This record gives sequence, C-alpha cells and structure tokens, in this order.
Amino acid sequence: MTKRQDGRLTTQARPLKVTRAFTKYAPGSVLIEYGDTKVLCTAMIENSVPRFLKDQGRGWLTAEYSMLPGSSAERIRRDINKGSLSGRSSEIQRLIGRSLRMALDFDKLGERTIYIDADVIQADGGTRTASVTGGMIALADAVQYLLDRNEISENPIKEWVAAISVGVENGMPITDLCYLEDSNADLDMNVIMTESGKIIELQGTAEKEPFEKAVLDELLEMAKNSIQQIISHVKKD
Amino acid sequence: MTKRQDGRLTTQARPLKVTRAFTKYAPGSVLIEYGDTKVLCTAMIENSVPRFLKDQGRGWLTAEYSMLPGSSAERIRRDINKGSLSGRSSEIQRLIGRSLRMALDFDKLGERTIYIDADVIQADGGTRTASVTGGMIALADAVQYLLDRNEISENPIKEWVAAISVGVENGMPITDLCYLEDSNADLDMNVIMTESGKIIELQGTAEKEPFEKAVLDELLEMAKNSIQQIISHVKKD
Amino acid sequence: MTKRQDGRLTTQARPLKVTRAFTKYAPGSVLIEYGDTKVLCTAMIENSVPRFLKDQGRGWLTAEYSMLPGSSAERIRRDINKGSLSGRSSEIQRLIGRSLRMALDFDKLGERTIYIDADVIQADGGTRTASVTGGMIALADAVQYLLDRNEISENPIKEWVAAISVGVENGMPITDLCYLEDSNADLDMNVIMTESGKIIELQGTAEKEPFEKAVLDELLEMAKNSIQQIISHVKKD
Amino acid sequence: MTKRQDGRLTTQARPLKVTRAFTKYAPGSVLIEYGDTKVLCTAMIENSVPRFLKDQGRGWLTAEYSMLPGSSAERIRRDINKGSLSGRSSEIQRLIGRSLRMALDFDKLGERTIYIDADVIQADGGTRTASVTGGMIALADAVQYLLDRNEISENPIKEWVAAISVGVENGMPITDLCYLEDSNADLDMNVIMTESGKIIELQGTAEKEPFEKAVLDELLEMAKNSIQQIISHVKKD
Amino acid sequence: MTKRQDGRLTTQARPLKVTRAFTKYAPGSVLIEYGDTKVLCTAMIENSVPRFLKDQGRGWLTAEYSMLPGSSAERIRRDINKGSLSGRSSEIQRLIGRSLRMALDFDKLGERTIYIDADVIQADGGTRTASVTGGMIALADAVQYLLDRNEISENPIKEWVAAISVGVENGMPITDLCYLEDSNADLDMNVIMTESGKIIELQGTAEKEPFEKAVLDELLEMAKNSIQQIISHVKKD
Amino acid sequence: MTKRQDGRLTTQARPLKVTRAFTKYAPGSVLIEYGDTKVLCTAMIENSVPRFLKDQGRGWLTAEYSMLPGSSAERIRRDINKGSLSGRSSEIQRLIGRSLRMALDFDKLGERTIYIDADVIQADGGTRTASVTGGMIALADAVQYLLDRNEISENPIKEWVAAISVGVENGMPITDLCYLEDSNADLDMNVIMTESGKIIELQGTAEKEPFEKAVLDELLEMAKNSIQQIISHVKKD
Repeated sequence: MTKRQDGRLTTQARPLKVTRAFTKYAPGSVLIEYGDTKVLCTAMIENSVPRFLKDQGRGWLTAEYSMLPGSSAERIRRDINKGSLSGRSSEIQRLIGRSLRMALDFDKLGERTIYIDADVIQADGGTRTASVTGGMIALADAVQYLLDRNEISENPIKEWVAAISVGVENGMPITDLCYLEDSNADLDMNVIMTESGKIIELQGTAEKEPFEKAVLDELLEMAKNSIQQIISHVKKD
Repeated sequence: MTKRQDGRLTTQARPLKVTRAFTKYAPGSVLIEYGDTKVLCTAMIENSVPRFLKDQGRGWLTAEYSMLPGSSAERIRRDINKGSLSGRSSEIQRLIGRSLRMALDFDKLGERTIYIDADVIQADGGTRTASVTGGMIALADAVQYLLDRNEISENPIKEWVAAISVGVENGMPITDLCYLEDSNADLDMNVIMTESGKIIELQGTAEKEPFEKAVLDELLEMAKNSIQQIISHVKKD
Repeated sequence: MTKRQDGRLTTQARPLKVTRAFTKYAPGSVLIEYGDTKVLCTAMIENSVPRFLKDQGRGWLTAEYSMLPGSSAERIRRDINKGSLSGRSSEIQRLIGRSLRMALDFDKLGERTIYIDADVIQADGGTRTASVTGGMIALADAVQYLLDRNEISENPIKEWVAAISVGVENGMPITDLCYLEDSNADLDMNVIMTESGKIIELQGTAEKEPFEKAVLDELLEMAKNSIQQIISHVKKD
Repeated sequence: MTKRQDGRLTTQARPLKVTRAFTKYAPGSVLIEYGDTKVLCTAMIENSVPRFLKDQGRGWLTAEYSMLPGSSAERIRRDINKGSLSGRSSEIQRLIGRSLRMALDFDKLGERTIYIDADVIQADGGTRTASVTGGMIALADAVQYLLDRNEISENPIKEWVAAISVGVENGMPITDLCYLEDSNADLDMNVIMTESGKIIELQGTAEKEPFEKAVLDELLEMAKNSIQQIISHVKKD
Repeated sequence: MTKRQDGRLTTQARPLKVTRAFTKYAPGSVLIEYGDTKVLCTAMIENSVPRFLKDQGRGWLTAEYSMLPGSSAERIRRDINKGSLSGRSSEIQRLIGRSLRMALDFDKLGERTIYIDADVIQADGGTRTASVTGGMIALADAVQYLLDRNEISENPIKEWVAAISVGVENGMPITDLCYLEDSNADLDMNVIMTESGKIIELQGTAEKEPFEKAVLDELLEMAKNSIQQIISHVKKD
Repeated sequence: MTKRQDGRLTTQARPLKVTRAFTKYAPGSVLIEYGDTKVLCTAMIENSVPRFLKDQGRGWLTAEYSMLPGSSAERIRRDINKGSLSGRSSEIQRLIGRSLRMALDFDKLGERTIYIDADVIQADGGTRTASVTGGMIALADAVQYLLDRNEISENPIKEWVAAISVGVENGMPITDLCYLEDSNADLDMNVIMTESGKIIELQGTAEKEPFEKAVLDELLEMAKNSIQQIISHVKKD
C-alpha cells in the first residue's frame, strides 16, 4: 500500500495538540495544532448584539481569520497594506462563523456577542479546519466562563462541532491534508460535523478533474470517523 | 403531496431563459433568468495573463460578481460606498471563477485572460448558480469568437458546466430554491457539475439543524438531474 | 449636405426606447435606450432623510451612476477594485441628482429619500443624458407608486426634465452625439431642460478650440427642440 | 438701484490680488485673492508623462484641488479621514485640469507633466474660478521657467485663460458671487474664457427655478467683460 | 570655528516670524516661519468632545498635520491619492496633539474640542517644531477668543509650550536644523519644553552612529535656551 | 521604601523569557516575554530592495507591528476593519525599523530586505520595547541563517540593540512599566541603546506634568543598566 509522505496511514489525521488558556485576557484562548499547523483561537464576549438583533433577547457569534506574516514560507502581506481583506480570508471567516453559530442556542446565550478570532501562527494545510475546531474549544471555554459567573444559567452549546479536511491525492483518498498534499490534491473537501456525525457544512472542490459521487461517499465516511475522534479527544482535555 | 409556494414540483427547477448577445461589446454577453432571478453575464478577453502565469503559454479565467442596487426589495448599497467588497460577493465570485476554470484547458486557450462579470439585475434566490450557468454560456460564446477569428485553433472547453441549488424546506427536499424558500430552508446546497454528471463543486450548509448523509444523497441526485437538463437546454440555444 | 456617420440628420436624436417596469422590486425601473446606449435606471424610496434635513417635513433625492464592466469595448474596472469612485462617475452622479431635484417639490414628497440608480449596460455616448431622462421616468413611476398607495396626496413633480447632448464635429453642429462623434467633437455640451424649455443645467466644454457665443446659441436651440420631443414622447408611454 | 451687500455694482468683480513666487520650490507659485477668497496655486514640472501618452513627444497637465481645514467657517474634514476625495473636489479639479489644458500646445511642451495644485486657504465663494485664474498664472510662470533654462524653445501657451462666476440673486444678474450671494443665488454659472473672449467651459446650474435663455445671454456678456479685465490685469503683473 | 552653511552660530535658531490672524474664520490662525519653513496653524473650536470624554465637563485637543504638494522641492503626493495617511504625518500629528494637551487645563476649557491644523506651506527642516510652536500661538488666540466672549471664565493655559530641533552635524552640536543640515545630521532631536524650561517631550534619534549621554546633555541645554527665547518672543507679539 | 504593585524593586525589569525558533518558516522567529507581555517577532529575508536603493549593493530593513484582537482586555479591532493602520501602530513600527537599522551594516548585508514582524499576542505594557529586543534576536538569527548558507561572508551586525521603558509613577522612578504602572505614570520614556550603552533612540513624554532634566538623567541611568543586562542575557541564550 502506498504510504503518505510523512508516513501516516491514509485515514490518519495529524497529531492534535490543544493548549488552553494560552493567553490571559480572553475567556477562551486556545493554541490548537494540527501537526505543523498552529492557530491561536480566542473567544471574547461583548454585552451587546448587532443592530438587526437588538432587543430580541438573543445572542450572536462572529468570527475573524487572519494569517500572521511569518506563518508561511513566503511572507504573507498584511491586509491593511493591500487595502482590503483577502477574498480567501473573507471566505474562511464566514465559514467559521456559520459553523460555530450552529453549535449555539442563542436564546440561552442572551444579548451577547461572542467574537472568535483565529490567527494562524504557522500554516501547513488545514488552517480553516483547525480554526473551526480551535474556535469551538475557545467558545466552550468562554461559555464556561459565563456559567461560572452565573451570567447565564443554562449551557447554550447544543452539540460540539469540529472540522477536518479530506481529499484525494494521486487517486488515494486521504484524511487531514498537509500543505504539500493539499497543493497536489485532485480534490479537496472540508467537512464540519457535530459529535453525533451530522453534517454542518460541506465544501468540496475539484482541483484537477471533476469527481464521482462514490468518491464523495468514501471521503465523507473518513471525515466522520476523524471528526468524532477529534471531538472525543478535545472534550476530555 | 405538499405543493411548493409557486406550484412547482419538488424536483422542478424554475423556467430557464437565456438571451445571448444581450449587449454588443463583450464577445460573450448573456442575460440568464432562473425564474425571477436575472443575471447579466459577460465574458471579455484580454491578451495577457496575471504575473504568476507569464510566459508559460497558458491562459487564465477570473470572475467578478455584484448586485445592482435595485436588484433586491431592500436597496443594495454599492461596495464602493461601503469601502470594501462584501464578504458574500467575494465568496461568490471566487466560486464562479474556480468552477469555470475547471471547464477549460488553458493550454489550448493560450496567453489570454477571460473576465467573467456577473451582475445581478434582479435577485430571487439562486443568483450564484445562475451566474455560473450564465457565465458558462458567455464563456462558450467568447471561445467561439476566438475560434471564428482563428485566434485559437482548438476548442479549449473540456466539458460544459452548470449549477443548481437544492435544499430542504419543512422537511421536503426541493430543487432550485427561490428567495422565500431559501430564507426558510433547513439546509441549502449549491451544486456545480459537468454535463456528464461529475461534481465540480459542492457547498452544503445546515441553516437550522445539522443534517444526515442520506439527505445529502437525495439532494445530489436531484441536482444531477436538474443540471443535466439545464446543460442540454442551453447547448441547443 | 454632409451626412452623419449613421445617416442621421444633424438635428436628429437617436431612436429613443423606454422599457418601464424592467425589474420588479424598485417602484420605478426603466431601461432607457438612446440608440445603442442602454441604461438601467431605478428609483427606490426610503422613509427617512439625510441628517441635515431631519424633522423639517421635506424630502430628498440622491443619485448614483456606474458603468458595468462589459458596457464598453474596453472592460471597465470596477470602482471597488480601484479603491475609489472614478472622478467621472462622481461628476455624473452629482449632475443627475442636482437635475432631478429641480423637478421636485420636496414639501409635497414628505420625509422620504428617493434613490436614483443609473447603471450603464451598454455605452455608446450620451450615458449621462440618458441617465437623466431615464431617471426622470423612474422618478415619475416611483411618485405614482406613492400616489396610488395614498402615501402622498399631491404630485410633487413640478415639471418633467430631460437631457440631450449637442456638439460640433468637423464644424457641424449636431444633436445627440454617439461615441464616435463624441470622441472627435470640437465641442461637447450637455443640456438639461424642463418641458417648457427652461434651462436646468448647462455644461459646455471646448474639446479642441475655444468657441464663439454664436455656436452656443445654435446648439441651445437644437437641444431645446430635441428635449421637448423627448419629454412629449416619454410622457405618453 | 439695488446695491449688493458689500456695496459692489452688479457687474463689478471683487478686488483681485496676485502674489507671485509665494513659495520657493515650485517654479510657479501664486497666492491669488478674489476678495476674501484666497487660493495658493502651484505649478510643478515632472519630466515624464502618463502611460497613455508615452513616447509621443507631447506633454500633459493635471490638476488637484483641496480646501484646508481652517478655510471655512465650519472646519473642513480632510479627505484622508473621510476615506475618499469629496465629489465636489473631484469635480472642481477635473474642471481646472480641462480648462488649463486648453491653454497649452502640448507638442511644444514636450514629454513633461505639469501639476497644478490649488489649495484653498480661505473660502468666500468662487474658489474654483480663482483656482483656474491662479493656476493659469502659475502655469505661465512654470512655462517661463522652462524657457529661461532653454528646456523648451517655443512658448506652448496658446492663449491665456481665466474664470469668473456670474449668477442671479433676487432677480438681479451679478458678477463674481461671494459666499453669501452664492448660497442665496437663483442660478449660478461658472465661465472660463480666453483673452479673446471665446468660451472654454461653461457650467450653469439652476438653484431655485429653471431659467430662460435671455438670462444666460446677459450673464455671458457680463462674464466676458470681467474675464477680459482679469486677464489684462494679471498679464501686466 | 566652523561656520554653518547659512552663517548662523551653532546655537542660533533661524529668524522667527509670526503672522497672527492670517485667515479670517478660525479663532486662532497663525502663519509661523522658522527661516524658510512656513506652516499655517489654525485652531478651531467645537462645542463637543469625543465619546470617551462625554459628560465629564472636560475638554479635549486634537491635531492634524499635512504638507501641501508644492511645499517641497519634490512634489508631495496627497494622502488621499496614496490611500492612507503617511506614517510620518501620523507620527507628527500625534506629537503635536500630545504636546499641546500638556499646555491645557481641560477642566477650565469645559466640554469643547480644539482642533489644531498644521499645514506646511514651505518645508525647510523643522516643520514639526514650527507646528508645535505655531499651534501653541493659535491655541492661545482661540482661548482668548473664548475669554473675550465670556464662554469660559478662567484661562485654561497652564504654561506656554514651544519646540525646537537640535542635533549634531559633522561632530558639531547645532540648534534649529535646516533641511540640508537635517539630512546630513549624525543625530537629530526634537525638544518640546515649557516656558519654565521643563521637558514636555523629547525625541532623539541616532541617524548615523549611536551617541553618548554627554552629547544629549549639551543638546538639551541648547534647546532650553532657544525655546525660552522663542516663547518670550511670541508672547510679546 | 515603597514597593511596586508586583513586588519588584524600582530598578528591576520583569522576568525576560526568549523562545527561539518559535515557528518553522521564518529564519528568525522569537517569542519574547517581558513578564506578561508576549510578542512574536519574526525576521524574513527577501532578495530585493526598495526602489530607492536599487543597484547600490546595499540592503534594507523594515518593520511592521500589530496587536492581535485577543491581546488586550478589551478586544482590539483589526486595522483592516477600521480601514487604516492605527496611528499608534504606525508610530511603533517606524520606531522598530529605525532602531534595528542602526544595528546593521547594510553594505555587508548586500541587496536584501529583512522584514521584521512584531505581533503582540498578549499586552501588559512595554510592547514596543519587547518588540525591539525580540526583533533584534530574530534579526540576529536571520543573519546567522545567511552566514550558515554562505550567502553573506561577514556578519553585518555592528552592535546588538535592546530597549526598555522607564518612567515615574507617584514620584518614584521605575524600570520596565507594566500596563497598570504605565497608565498611571507621570512620565513615560522608551530608551533604545546598544550593548556598549550608547543611545539609539530616546522618546520621553510627560503624561501629567512637565519634568526636570534631573529626572531624565536618573531614568537614563536606570535604562542603561537594564538594557545591558538584557543584551547580556539574550546573547547567551
């Protein structure tokens, strides 16, 4: 059987490492590592909501994503120097926000906004999936912070959420692509699921050739197994 | 059986209307209508490529998407007045570009860039899928323009591409959601496929509750049928 | 006598075509065509006024103008990608706004703002004059919409307004310059008048040589005749 | 006969004052005063031309206009803090540029760009007309600088150009409106002419009611007299 | 002893010239000249404060700095055309604001904001120090304006403030560097002090080689003497 | 004797911690901690120089500074969302760049640009001084990287540079102010020196009252001792 470049099995995700309370101000602050991909995810709370939600007693969650200049082999130019947020960052932060909002019951959160910030410190493929999973942990810690202070009485988290990338490289379905695999992939898919294995968000893109439904089925099965392992791992931490 | 608001069958797309050569300057210019959704798609050609492709003898395609201020019930503020491209537009135009690039053999196109512009004149749900399909037709017309003038010798289109939305509303799987259905949907999925039924891009998002794999399977089958009908329809036009 | 390139008489405007209710959301929505120049003009209503007019019981009108990327032989870059509104667009939209405000009695409109959006779909000279005339029709339709719903009791339109370009090409005074005539013109003048023939706005620019007062007189007479024909035509539609 | 607020005759322009060489770096540097309106106009020379003129042996002129924050009774916010050039400034600087370009024979100027900067130090109506006249003087001084250094052999100035505003206040035609007159005017017109009395640019705007052709005729005659006096005055200085 | 290029003694500042009431709208309006460096400083008053100071009965002062395009031998591009405030301007205007705030007792000023605008008309080194001193005079005039109208009852100025540059060129400590000296300097220091000789702000930068504490001591002594002369001079004016 | 809030002696800096090779792509990558202040400093190399240095065989160094949103008790809004770089960040990154350029002999570096990026992960006062010291270490590591690969033959570092803040709180001179001390300080000074104790940059600001020269002298002595300890510490690491 063909081995992957770093010796992993095709269905094996990279080592997952989670450092909670990585910084001291944000109520949720997590350094998450998917192998060499390292993302600092913080969750901060503001006691207000966007205008379209005013006076409804419900909360909101929004997310922002950015890569530090030194996080990649080629230096990443700062958005402020280019004059606009990169289309890629915009797309990723919208994905993070949508996914984590699905984890919450906003009636239980009350009129609060949770800001998730995902700042990539080192990028080696899968920064968006690491950001979703890391953001989920930071969110859970921020929620615990509110519970501990009796600012909310019920836990607003409905189900934990996590994300993984799957894809096909040289005809071989693989889990959790590193940067090299990702840049050679025939097809790249990001999957966000709940701990019970239901789909939150699915984004599959043919990179070289259009692909068959059967490939999709196999990849989704791999993603499900990996996501359930991840959630079970991080909930214990 | 439950009927849809506009009387359509669950698997029935809205009436498709294509007006080619809608304007006179762009070599491809298409007004595409998915029911009440109307998008003007143009394809224009420049004899140069972005820097990262210089001197490789290969072409490129890029896409931009925007909504006219009067295209929606509530006036859409222009991006230039907000100071930045909306995240939603950025995401959609990246999707259009990725999808249509998969239709092309850039070696056969030569050092040219094709600009696809999708400007929404009237929005009633499905503007991104109409933009992909309309963009494909405009692209085909621009390619024909090059062939007619002997600027290229071989047709660079590998396979036609089209797009449709599918989703679930009140537990009922439906094809080609109009705005009202879209805003009530439990789940919303955009599917882009080739004429042979292979997947180019797949974006599914749970809007209310996470969903099961079986739902995905049913929706993909509906999307495939609809897309094949669309491509067969527009290729005849 | 010298004929014009397209066979028109010197005093003859291009065929005028007006399609009302071109889109379904805006209460005024007009596709106006001056020959090959096509502009989509919409009029939308908001029940508020800019801060400097607050609580005075009076209304306001503002206009925005833009060219679609495919509207010209050379693709028009979007403002948002250049980072600022083009000086030319800024100048034109201020002109449209000033002119159409002169048509209205704002006391009768009440505390409402009317947004006129003029988006050029195809440009062949005279986009600003077509925008004024098309904007006037859209404005009239939006006003009718308010009257029909009894939101206002008296018609706030004082007099209809329309616009035409006149100029001199190769020493010959001509009406309604198309793009080719405009780029060769010795002198270019945009005239906006009321149906009774009074002047609202006059902008004349020497393009090659300064010009005599006598030329101005002749051009204004031509403009007046043309504008009165236009208004009489569009009020019947 | 009705007197004007400041005692001037209806056809009388405000006192004109010109200070040349107001600053030391720019080859043309003029502080021009139309009564209490004071504008610093500089003309600077660069030995290059915009791309569209490259290698044609011809020159170019461009103009920029701005108001200093303290130039008005209410502080003017800087453009950079608003994020974009004001529409009014954009319109004015385009007017200055167009008008002064008509004064020049660009073949005689050679491949040089002249930058005219008009910065309003104190505004009391007529800043755009003072900018055109002041810009013309600065331009003439910059041209003389080139002649003195034998960088060009023939004077590229075809005819001098100057500007004045005329208008109607309370039914009375008046020349060179100050701020108070301007804000009450029924009609406001800016006229730019050559020393021989030909029209370069004409911008008339009804502010309260549309106006008759006969009013235009009277105002143009007043403008012509005033402009010829101004040019004769400043050429002597 | 080595003479300076312009014949000045090493400890001699350039001729100082102050023209008050240079423009008519701003309650403080000063043209200040340090030799060939000319800066127009205005002080304007608004009866409101930034949000963070609301309802505390205290005032605020803020400053903005800019160079006119023609103020330098090489034309200065306007910030609005570059898309952002230059880092240098940002740094200088923060310095002016901080320094002049130290001159004021904001409790005595009441809920007002004073805007200091420093616009450089001609630059020959020392524009930031001239701006601080000129801004102080404009501030004093604006305060006097409030006192004269009985809008405030006590003078909020605690001590006058002024600024000078000192530095080392070719090993020689010098006061008030002109542009040529500044561009050759080994070390450049801007000193802002009160009339009693206390330090408000000190910014010293090694330009060629790090410098010894003894040099700092000598320069500070020179700065103190110069600043006290300046304040004594301008308070008499 | 009065103790400081965290028990430190007045002349005692906070614990310094340096983690080199914190990320894997940048040739210099340092997590530096001054107590609770944590800054990630990277140094990256590009084989080109800014235009003004082209073809002179000399190198350049530039620096950028930013605070992560979660680095402070109140969330820091990203610059890209405000539309411009904050004045404070602009000032700080110019300071870092100027200081580190003084450490280098650019002739020995050759035509390369070194980018220093300082991103604050946790802020507790002194982020700019930590950024200078951390940037110096990252710079030294990047230089070593070039030496190890024989891309340069001589070490371009002239002398190491480090920075510390000193100030006065409640009349007591103290070294290395934490956030609480900084916000109460009477006077705040940032000092950047070489290992031999010479001054590179000095920025002292009175925050409450102007201060005497004697205070400056005492603070500079404290800064010198602290900086020499820091450099001796980090060079050993």
